[in-house]
Amino acid sequence: MNYSIVRYILGRTLLLEALLLVAPLMVAFIYQESSITILSFIITIILILITGILMSWQKPSKPEFYAREGFVVVTLTWFFLSLFGSLPFVISGSIPSPVNAFFETVSGFTTTGASILNDVEILPRSILFWRSLTHLIGGMGVLVFALAILPKVESDAVHIMRAEVPGPSFGKMLARVSHTARILYKIYLIMTGALILILILFGMPVFDSFIHAFGAAGTGGFSSHNASIAHYGKPALEIIIGAAMLLFGVNFYIYYLIMIRQFRSALKNEELRWYGFFITLAIAVISLMLIPQYNNVNQMLRDVFFTVASIISTTGYATANFDTWPMAAHIVLMLLMFCGGMAGSTAGGIKVSRLAIYMKTVFQDIRHAISPNRRIVENFEKKPLSRDFQHSVSTYFMTYILFFSACLFIVSFDTPNFISAFSAVAATLNNIGPGLDMVGPTSNYSELSDWTKIVLAIAMVAGRLEIYPVLVLLSPKTWRKL
Amino acid sequence: MNYSIVRYILGRTLLLEALLLVAPLMVAFIYQESSITILSFIITIILILITGILMSWQKPSKPEFYAREGFVVVTLTWFFLSLFGSLPFVISGSIPSPVNAFFETVSGFTTTGASILNDVEILPRSILFWRSLTHLIGGMGVLVFALAILPKVESDAVHIMRAEVPGPSFGKMLARVSHTARILYKIYLIMTGALILILILFGMPVFDSFIHAFGAAGTGGFSSHNASIAHYGKPALEIIIGAAMLLFGVNFYIYYLIMIRQFRSALKNEELRWYGFFITLAIAVISLMLIPQYNNVNQMLRDVFFTVASIISTTGYATANFDTWPMAAHIVLMLLMFCGGMAGSTAGGIKVSRLAIYMKTVFQDIRHAISPNRRIVENFEKKPLSRDFQHSVSTYFMTYILFFSACLFIVSFDTPNFISAFSAVAATLNNIGPGLDMVGPTSNYSELSDWTKIVLAIAMVAGRLEIYPVLVLLSPKTWRKL
Repeated sequence: MNYSIVRYILGRTLLLEALLLVAPLMVAFIYQESSITILSFIITIILILITGILMSWQKPSKPEFYAREGFVVVTLTWFFLSLFGSLPFVISGSIPSPVNAFFETVSGFTTTGASILNDVEILPRSILFWRSLTHLIGGMGVLVFALAILPKVESDAVHIMRAEVPGPSFGKMLARVSHTARILYKIYLIMTGALILILILFGMPVFDSFIHAFGAAGTGGFSSHNASIAHYGKPALEIIIGAAMLLFGVNFYIYYLIMIRQFRSALKNEELRWYGFFITLAIAVISLMLIPQYNNVNQMLRDVFFTVASIISTTGYATANFDTWPMAAHIVLMLLMFCGGMAGSTAGGIKVSRLAIYMKTVFQDIRHAISPNRRIVENFEKKPLSRDFQHSVSTYFMTYILFFSACLFIVSFDTPNFISAFSAVAATLNNIGPGLDMVGPTSNYSELSDWTKIVLAIAMVAGRLEIYPVLVLLSPKTWRKL
Repeated sequence: MNYSIVRYILGRTLLLEALLLVAPLMVAFIYQESSITILSFIITIILILITGILMSWQKPSKPEFYAREGFVVVTLTWFFLSLFGSLPFVISGSIPSPVNAFFETVSGFTTTGASILNDVEILPRSILFWRSLTHLIGGMGVLVFALAILPKVESDAVHIMRAEVPGPSFGKMLARVSHTARILYKIYLIMTGALILILILFGMPVFDSFIHAFGAAGTGGFSSHNASIAHYGKPALEIIIGAAMLLFGVNFYIYYLIMIRQFRSALKNEELRWYGFFITLAIAVISLMLIPQYNNVNQMLRDVFFTVASIISTTGYATANFDTWPMAAHIVLMLLMFCGGMAGSTAGGIKVSRLAIYMKTVFQDIRHAISPNRRIVENFEKKPLSRDFQHSVSTYFMTYILFFSACLFIVSFDTPNFISAFSAVAATLNNIGPGLDMVGPTSNYSELSDWTKIVLAIAMVAGRLEIYPVLVLLSPKTWRKL
């Protein structure tokens, strides 16, 4: 393990966080907030600057940077940023408990949106702004973000990139890492900016527009209102945010293709078609079940569209209280929770492409069982699926289930029933936010013990980084000298 | 599809069922039961004889017998045997509803033990005997059983064998199928006979000893008492049946090794060690959780031992009402439900060997992530795990999860809460029997709709045959002419 480069990169990333904290500080000045709020940001920035400078003062002694270092850096970055990022909540008194503040910040950076706050409306605006800004920062992955600013590790950065960008494949974009990071970054910010403008145009207050655009862009889900998007009661806003969540669940490679005017390749993308298929199917199935519950078909379709978009994109914004929907609708939503968005998007979950490959692998096997002597090869994105690729995808799935089971066991000590434990793990590991029952859309994570909150925070980071980096960090092998 | 051979084998197997029905008929005579009970068996036997003779009168026109035919025969056999096997229940009036009777019989043949009966103690003994005899028959798989009697399809029988014997590998036993079947059959019956004797010796009534030995041997779980094994309140019987369930969850290949005096190979079997490890771990973990709930440590250990043995062997006998145990204990039991016994035993579930291979595959992948340039090969049973083998095991797991999700969705229309739906599917697909809450140890499946019962019956057969044969049967490709 090359400790010096790990230390150096962590230090540089912290300096970046200090810079980002200037934004909520400005908000505090604009809204002329209390001195304790303003001070909380200033103190945090100073603490981060000192730590960051101390850590990055000395250049790394060795240039070696392997996958192992990449995994360790990525995982530690999320924990470090969250640890320091939680200071303003604690110092300002908005979230007095350090564990709660840490949970909320991890939830922000991992774009999960799980909250321990019972009332967000009493918080200062600068604090709400910082809380939601973590979604925007987390959205594309702090290190893709950092890569665009810190080109010094460029040649070795491919390992970070591989650990960071969600999903099994990212097209040919991996090659030119720094260049790629800048492009993604540009697309991401332009889309977020456009969303802010549209929200303002359709009558959402300016401050709220920033908050909800950040939440949708990072597929996070923090809101400035206790009732989430239902607060506004405006159908137009629900449709806009619903559509935005779905768009941020799309592989950004598709937008890159559109940017370079390869419209046909963009539309022919197989994962995009599966994504569309899952969304359409879920909306149709749930709508059929809800017909007896609703008088107004328009409202029903809007509620279902919004909820499906919110869950499959792993955002977690709410308009309807789906706890009152029938059980079978819950199962569909639960399946969408595990599905998640497309690879290479800001969404969490197992990812549409993996799920498509799983299903193809299963069908291939059934066809093989029927005709054992025929060689059956499935294609994905017009390329034959290789055994090695299928192997890595299947193994991910098994790792996911094992990790899920371990979390479920630990969390079950602290939850009153199965659905609470199951959905709490599903909602955090898939970076969604609200679960069902005890952690449902009308409730939150505040009543869990500190121990459980820390486990769920680890689950959020593991979900965001697709488990392996966290397991590598926890493996004793990583820390052994070679 | 070679329809004639499918028809022929089904016919022959039905004739065998007619023969087996003579046993409960004898019981009815011995206990001088009502004429309607006696008649119900006689009518059934006549109906089966007519159908069986009609179906097997004409020899198959073509000798071709491929994997496809094997899968279809195996799956249809379970449905046919259950359909005809349910007639005595309906005719005698013990279970008037045909769907309920079908559910109960499928549950018997698949050695699941899920029941729709609220009171078993009012049933005639011959009916109870037939109900439990289906466990014994189902135990080793009707076709392994049939193979030993019908040696005419010997050369092609390997396909049936492959579809029938549970688990991913059965050592070198596959080669000599008919010979093997006879050996397995012998071990199985000797062990069952020994268990009957031991139970009688320790004070269980003779009739009950047969019933519970059949239930333990097939890892089924039907009892002649509403309170299951708790009825006797005898610690010795609990320990004997607990140990018996564990022994019938062991790969029969191990007993074969013991029979030919290869004790060392038997003890060195890796799957056996994993099995022991899982059992010990589960007992230790649950016991630690239960300490505050029990005054008597002996009783606690006995309850935990029995419950763990009952669940991991997928039998489903009960002594303690584990619904009152803490949630975390439920999660451990749930994980054991999915684990199941060893491959090549009468137990259901995913199987210990598969789980061990999953975990090894996951660890291999983590180690590969840490050191990408080193080639890491895991061993299982002292042989290196090949990619192809890992692929087939992973794919089974994914098929399992997909099938599970589909069942969960359908069942959720008919269950009041998540835990009922989830555990009903888990308990039937893994061939355990009782689940939790609505289908818990103190309740049963009677309140579900007919539609749900049929879906769960399909799940039981799918679980017993490790899913593929059922999927092959349902696939349109199977029925297409080539």
